[in-house]
Amino acid sequence: MKVIHKINELRVELAQYYHSEQSIGFVPTMGCLHQGHLKLMENAVKENDIVVLSIFVNPTQFGPEEDYEEYPRNFKKDFTKARETGVDYIFNPEVEEMYSEGYNTFVEVEKLTEKLCGASRPEHFRGVTTVVTKLFNIVRPDIAYFGQKDFQQFVVIKRLVKDLNFPLKLEMVPIAREDDGLAISSRNKYLNKREREAAGVLYQALQKGENMILKGERNAYKVEEKMKDLIKDEELASIDYVKAVEPETLEDIEKISKEVLLAVAVFIGETRLIDNFYIEEIAGN
Amino acid sequence: MKVIHKINELRVELAQYYHSEQSIGFVPTMGCLHQGHLKLMENAVKENDIVVLSIFVNPTQFGPEEDYEEYPRNFKKDFTKARETGVDYIFNPEVEEMYSEGYNTFVEVEKLTEKLCGASRPEHFRGVTTVVTKLFNIVRPDIAYFGQKDFQQFVVIKRLVKDLNFPLKLEMVPIAREDDGLAISSRNKYLNKREREAAGVLYQALQKGENMILKGERNAYKVEEKMKDLIKDEELASIDYVKAVEPETLEDIEKISKEVLLAVAVFIGETRLIDNFYIEEIAGN
Repeated sequence: MKVIHKINELRVELAQYYHSEQSIGFVPTMGCLHQGHLKLMENAVKENDIVVLSIFVNPTQFGPEEDYEEYPRNFKKDFTKARETGVDYIFNPEVEEMYSEGYNTFVEVEKLTEKLCGASRPEHFRGVTTVVTKLFNIVRPDIAYFGQKDFQQFVVIKRLVKDLNFPLKLEMVPIAREDDGLAISSRNKYLNKREREAAGVLYQALQKGENMILKGERNAYKVEEKMKDLIKDEELASIDYVKAVEPETLEDIEKISKEVLLAVAVFIGETRLIDNFYIEEIAGN
Repeated sequence: MKVIHKINELRVELAQYYHSEQSIGFVPTMGCLHQGHLKLMENAVKENDIVVLSIFVNPTQFGPEEDYEEYPRNFKKDFTKARETGVDYIFNPEVEEMYSEGYNTFVEVEKLTEKLCGASRPEHFRGVTTVVTKLFNIVRPDIAYFGQKDFQQFVVIKRLVKDLNFPLKLEMVPIAREDDGLAISSRNKYLNKREREAAGVLYQALQKGENMILKGERNAYKVEEKMKDLIKDEELASIDYVKAVEPETLEDIEKISKEVLLAVAVFIGETRLIDNFYIEEIAGN
């Protein structure tokens, strides 16, 4: 496994694969690799000849009040995990390598990015779509892997790839969870013991919503309200959003029919956590 | 020479070249091919194994009051010219093929696009950078060719390519001119006989500016004023802008030193024409 810091160096390394039939799998991350990332890498290794992992804490997707500086970084551990999983290249550029002097180009997906997390993190998705465009052009993968935990991010990137005609496939990999159901996230590190216990409430609320739907509830508002009630009972939790939406457009729905995305964003103390259930093929539809 | 209307069909055709060492040259146009385009195609044919010409009148780069509907189209003549020049593929998509339902992604280069033409055509460059990004992803060229007449467009696309890490080279091809110096443009077709004569004033103003600089004038404001005076003497002409700017950043300058871009945009009757002189290596600097 090679670690590469420079764009041009990575291009030179990868050039040999473009002129062959070998496929390149790509896993873009901000590092601090956990069980969720491992699943992405495992799938990429299984399905491609060559796998590139990028580790880059992208400043432009953090808001001015957000945790860019504190975001956990641990390259040494990441290196070991990536090597054990069978990754071929780690691309680990400096900020100056990605955004050099005079940088001024931005890629924006409209509408979709105003919903859910976009409402409370207005610049976030512009940062994501811009850096993902850059990384796609640098790596030129055949398949890129993203986690379902960031469901909205996946929907936005799907739109980006379709609209800008990127010649690649996207794969969404299911959420990895702790024993109590908490979605694994680098930000879970911020939680103290009491908060960690409280954080289980996101999963409980999603289960509550799913159970209501499986039992026949079709009123999206009622489902959301019951989920909110459950979260409000946890005193360390404060809700950013709790939503039942159409999974492709992320539009609000009144009546749940074929499929639905239950998505939640909740502050546990100071830490903002997100989670979702994507419920496909709802019975009786 | 093949004419292709569908993105996927072009991808299939071009796939064979990606897995070989053959280079792809790309000439993006809005059709109505003239002497300027011929130079682009000739260079592309000379320098590459395969040449793709795109003909697409891109609606998103026209303002609501602009000439999208009237913009001249003549596929039959374009076809003959392209074939004679040695182009291999014409990519000629419908609008719906490029912007399908739910389209919502935009690529924007900031700052540079606010200057010169960007001031009077605020949405224009966003349309250009978005469609060029799409075309680059569809064609995946090794070299893309653009005309110097749209100097600002070239500077903006250079920024786009650098910032978004497109793995390709750009080539700027000099302006083709009529006998009286008028830069050849598809929009020259809009001019009546009297206007056609008046249109020579753009070139005369640029010559005036260049002569002043060659004779030692270093005050940008004085150069601009003399150029403006010359244009104002033509009663069919009305000035959009007349500028001496730094060629890379398009920033205003006070003192002309190493190099300068003289750029003009002038309405001749209802028709807006642009032209420029790029003066490199000014003596005594």
